[in-house]
Amino acid sequence: MRTQVVIIGSGPSGLLLGQLLTKAGIDNIILDRVSPDYILGRVRAGVLEEGMVRLLDEAGASERLHREGLPHEGISLAFDGRDHRIDLTKLTGGKRVVVYGQTEVTQDLLDERRKSGAGGFYEAANVTPHAFDTDSPYVTFEKDGVTHRIDCDFIAGCDGYHGVSRKSVPENAIRTFEKVYPFGWLGVLIDRPPVDHELIYANHERGFALCSMRSLTRSRYYIQCALDEKIEDWSDARFFDELRLRLPAPHAEALVTGESFEKSIAPLRSFVAEPMRFGRLFLVGDAAHIVPPTGAKGLNLAASDVHYLHEGLREFYAERSLAGIDAYSARALARVWKAERFSWSMTTLLHRFPDTGSFDRKMQEADLDYLVHSLAASTALAENYVGLPF
Amino acid sequence: MRTQVVIIGSGPSGLLLGQLLTKAGIDNIILDRVSPDYILGRVRAGVLEEGMVRLLDEAGASERLHREGLPHEGISLAFDGRDHRIDLTKLTGGKRVVVYGQTEVTQDLLDERRKSGAGGFYEAANVTPHAFDTDSPYVTFEKDGVTHRIDCDFIAGCDGYHGVSRKSVPENAIRTFEKVYPFGWLGVLIDRPPVDHELIYANHERGFALCSMRSLTRSRYYIQCALDEKIEDWSDARFFDELRLRLPAPHAEALVTGESFEKSIAPLRSFVAEPMRFGRLFLVGDAAHIVPPTGAKGLNLAASDVHYLHEGLREFYAERSLAGIDAYSARALARVWKAERFSWSMTTLLHRFPDTGSFDRKMQEADLDYLVHSLAASTALAENYVGLPF
Repeated sequence: MRTQVVIIGSGPSGLLLGQLLTKAGIDNIILDRVSPDYILGRVRAGVLEEGMVRLLDEAGASERLHREGLPHEGISLAFDGRDHRIDLTKLTGGKRVVVYGQTEVTQDLLDERRKSGAGGFYEAANVTPHAFDTDSPYVTFEKDGVTHRIDCDFIAGCDGYHGVSRKSVPENAIRTFEKVYPFGWLGVLIDRPPVDHELIYANHERGFALCSMRSLTRSRYYIQCALDEKIEDWSDARFFDELRLRLPAPHAEALVTGESFEKSIAPLRSFVAEPMRFGRLFLVGDAAHIVPPTGAKGLNLAASDVHYLHEGLREFYAERSLAGIDAYSARALARVWKAERFSWSMTTLLHRFPDTGSFDRKMQEADLDYLVHSLAASTALAENYVGLPF
Repeated sequence: MRTQVVIIGSGPSGLLLGQLLTKAGIDNIILDRVSPDYILGRVRAGVLEEGMVRLLDEAGASERLHREGLPHEGISLAFDGRDHRIDLTKLTGGKRVVVYGQTEVTQDLLDERRKSGAGGFYEAANVTPHAFDTDSPYVTFEKDGVTHRIDCDFIAGCDGYHGVSRKSVPENAIRTFEKVYPFGWLGVLIDRPPVDHELIYANHERGFALCSMRSLTRSRYYIQCALDEKIEDWSDARFFDELRLRLPAPHAEALVTGESFEKSIAPLRSFVAEPMRFGRLFLVGDAAHIVPPTGAKGLNLAASDVHYLHEGLREFYAERSLAGIDAYSARALARVWKAERFSWSMTTLLHRFPDTGSFDRKMQEADLDYLVHSLAASTALAENYVGLPF
């Protein structure tokens, strides 16, 4: 087999890249080791920046998003027993974010890909990129006991932190930066209306809490927990009791609870691999970088990688120019580090760290207080939250 | 003896408070355990916020300051081998700071105090505040072998971190917060023109450096050093060689060196005592709080304490109202914590910490980069640097 671009990974970044390339007339094949249903079963973030929405428009996969997505014009920072609203839209001259689950994004992209007839192989075993340090890279995989080979011009590694793409790069060619935070997020999904129409990020002496949502009838709640917590120790009742303790009284009283249908503990990590291009192999999204979920940058950051990469590839096929491809890693990483900074600073600001002394605790309080009372500081938060320009 | 307010400590905050009270017709006596010459021999900061300048105007001690002080409209953050100017005046709608040595401020205040004929005792031993939890406080001290007692309405503790005032408060009545940084500042004073007309704050892999000044012919330079460095190991030549390594090339080349006439190592500490009022005793300035010198907030913060206290005392004597006095601690501390936050964040941003990992280092780089490229973030820095409103 032969195609122009092999995309490893059928999550939202792989699918988005695929659709953008297809729209531009660039052949591509998507490979994934699991099935579409498995991919759609993953529970992930759901706050989209305008830049990501524009890419979904361009990919022709935003019709439902515009119908069902919830535009948000602000967030609340809750501390000291009360809400402090950050008016994102006012502070950024009209920008907003859209709450729309990653699962829905993936579904829409899968639907569009099916319609377009572009190729792909799911439940493909042992997907392996080869010869990407030459001009003739190829990818092999096994399907139903048969080994296949796809020759291509480029390979896009959209296969996440644990994927094969980054692992295929020689160790001495890549530098990684990592920070593991000393806590996790215990999260539940529940089919009840969210406690508020906007997201609430709470800093409380018992730990961080986040009231988020996927839709007007589906809520996503999180509480900071120790890394060694066991999910089976957290009944729904215990979870919601703890959540209530961390919220300002009006929210604690308004919280509508019930039986959750998903509950999990996720560790928090910051991770960056440099560079993001190795000859004819590009790393995209979580394959190259992870942010802690505070601030909802993970999916949006994958989208900006896709933006830079599909621009570079289009330029290559339209003009045979390598300029965009050569610039991919530097352009993507410049924005990656900005988003890493924001996610790290929001995480640092909002969580309780086990080793924090009383002075550091006061600094966290003073930081929060300054943030909500200074127009300049609120604006800095807002411009990052809605997404820095691509 | 009897007076209305006894001021313990004849540094700039005690002298400023004394002059403001004298101007308002409130009797006061200043006590200090050392001599005026000793006080004038202390080498201290020299960047004044406009709020402090206004207080010196009000105290009638600003004539020379307006003649000789150097208005500064910007600072440089140097990193990545080059300068990034923060235009303080443009970002704050016209505000500036004035470079004028603390020694000069003290001299001017001492001169005015002498002219006003207000009382004071220098080289007073065993100064001790008494009965400040009653309406009849008094202060005792020894001078030339004789014990004196001054009865008064109020006692202002302007005697610094090591002074007797804070130490006289019962331990269970006061709460302290402290952070000691794992490095110091090695500083020199030299009678050579400063390397640049504005201050340069440098973040370099070898450590922080600061190019400051006292006048157009007197420069103050600092380099971050380990806490166990010995001053005798640092010749002027070694100091300036190290400083040059930490500055962008144009500054390193322009640096005019020579023989320093002062050289010292200072530790960096953040410290706050709460509350700042104990009955009839008030803590003012360094007696209640210390900031690390990054950002030059120490003297200015003492000035805002003086502002709140002299307002409260004037209100008391004019209207017999306790409102201003009762509000002193809360009003002062609100601003103290803001300045502590800024000084801590500037210190964290600009220094190399011994335990910083490669990810944290990248976050510092990203923070600096964001700070100088985001209008909102630059504005937040500038509004703090020129001084938040009293």
